[in-house]
Amino acid sequence: MTHNFSKCRVVTFKSNGVQSFGVMTDEGVIDLSCKFPNFPTLREVIEADQLKELVTAAEGSAVSFKNGEFTLDIPVPFPEKIICVGVNYPDRNAEYKDGSDAPLNPSLFIRFPGSFTGHNQPLIRPPESFKLDYEGEITIVIGKGGRRISEDAAYDHIAALTLCNEGTLRDWVRHAKFNVTQGKNFEKSGSIGPWLIPFYDSNQIDNISLKTRVNGEVRQEDITSRMIFSFRRIIAYISTFTALVPGDVIVCGTPTGAGARFDPPIWLKPGDIIEVEAEGIGVLSNTVEDEVIT
Amino acid sequence: MTHNFSKCRVVTFKSNGVQSFGVMTDEGVIDLSCKFPNFPTLREVIEADQLKELVTAAEGSAVSFKNGEFTLDIPVPFPEKIICVGVNYPDRNAEYKDGSDAPLNPSLFIRFPGSFTGHNQPLIRPPESFKLDYEGEITIVIGKGGRRISEDAAYDHIAALTLCNEGTLRDWVRHAKFNVTQGKNFEKSGSIGPWLIPFYDSNQIDNISLKTRVNGEVRQEDITSRMIFSFRRIIAYISTFTALVPGDVIVCGTPTGAGARFDPPIWLKPGDIIEVEAEGIGVLSNTVEDEVIT
Repeated sequence: MTHNFSKCRVVTFKSNGVQSFGVMTDEGVIDLSCKFPNFPTLREVIEADQLKELVTAAEGSAVSFKNGEFTLDIPVPFPEKIICVGVNYPDRNAEYKDGSDAPLNPSLFIRFPGSFTGHNQPLIRPPESFKLDYEGEITIVIGKGGRRISEDAAYDHIAALTLCNEGTLRDWVRHAKFNVTQGKNFEKSGSIGPWLIPFYDSNQIDNISLKTRVNGEVRQEDITSRMIFSFRRIIAYISTFTALVPGDVIVCGTPTGAGARFDPPIWLKPGDIIEVEAEGIGVLSNTVEDEVIT
Repeated sequence: MTHNFSKCRVVTFKSNGVQSFGVMTDEGVIDLSCKFPNFPTLREVIEADQLKELVTAAEGSAVSFKNGEFTLDIPVPFPEKIICVGVNYPDRNAEYKDGSDAPLNPSLFIRFPGSFTGHNQPLIRPPESFKLDYEGEITIVIGKGGRRISEDAAYDHIAALTLCNEGTLRDWVRHAKFNVTQGKNFEKSGSIGPWLIPFYDSNQIDNISLKTRVNGEVRQEDITSRMIFSFRRIIAYISTFTALVPGDVIVCGTPTGAGARFDPPIWLKPGDIIEVEAEGIGVLSNTVEDEVIT
């Protein structure tokens, strides 16, 4: 089965202050909210298993808003859960020959939707910290919900793929004795997007490249077959304790090479351009701006 | 200003499989969904600042469902956020005379609504772990949203008070290298309730007692004036990084004395009765049942 993924770019967008959903083309966006009036957002589209029908419905339709007439929001505006996996690719210098040093289970934390912005929007550096850092990650959106999903069945529960720049305020990650919550949840410090690519086939994720560039320089680069915890394992593990529901977002962990790993560390600053790219999914691009406090 | 808080018990309940909201009396519940048809849940009631009006509207009304004809759900069914503070009362044996050992900032983690059940419902012990533990906590529900709320203004942002048994699977808290996410998010492993008490006055929380009993034995006991991080500080700190919105739930930390602190530890088991009680709020009671996997 082959798909032209460039024609499967499902987006949540805003035009004239109104949020809607549709399909992206090279010229602009085809608004599909009116053709699917029962669904307030893509979360409900996914819940009804109509994501691929959205793509079909867009075929041959004229663009509703040209490029420049809309902005992209995070694809699922209010998922029930956004669960993030900690660093999930081995250090290029580390040896895990016998597996003894590899962690047994993925480290997990949670982000709120407000901690993300959309593609081509600025990441916001707050006045409380200048240690804003990037983390490029492949992100899956759950279709069919479930509890204690087996690794074998895991891919049946993926509705779509997207990307995340899991932007982090490094000093606030260790602000308290335990947990990274606060450094991972500054408003609009990260991004998700640019779009959802419906999931058809394991070839879309099993061995694809993932890169993060800052101002054109490659900072993170790895392939998904090297992930410490595979997509299958992540879905199985998380669903052991919590019931996954349609629209849940799982951010699947970053390769080594974040700014904090440099000596001295290199933090993001206003004007930087950060691009997260994965084969067959696209490029998620963001700038950085200082927060304006009124 | 004095209030008879026993008449201010705002609940989310289920009767004949339908979820609704109303006010509890000693005889049963007064259903108020029909009088406030614009609000699907208490979250929207709180958003419109109508919680106290709900209490007024119940005055003189007849009970809609008698005790035994309904069950209580968690008061705000789908808050945008449930943020929990780590242990927040000093060890009775510890000295913080110069403050040097006290943590600088509260440790925070997040729970999903599905990890909680309502008053008088069983906490669920999953087959993956027998180390189910209790944590009794005072819980605030945000009314007016805001970012970077000052400690002085913090109480203006509280809509209501409730209680939480922040039930935890202890071995899953340290299942990975970082973060407590998984041990804090097993389905129905904790509880919130029994009801919301609208917040009128600082006397309702500034120096009240909080107790947890297991099968009648007091295991945790402290007073809120001894909290390491005050309610004001918690609201100010959390709103530094994230914008609080109406209906957000903040679980404000537990006293020492959880089952894990005993030597050997004492875990909860089916048939146990756990009661979390705070002055002026009420008693949140739950049993424990083993999960039935079909």
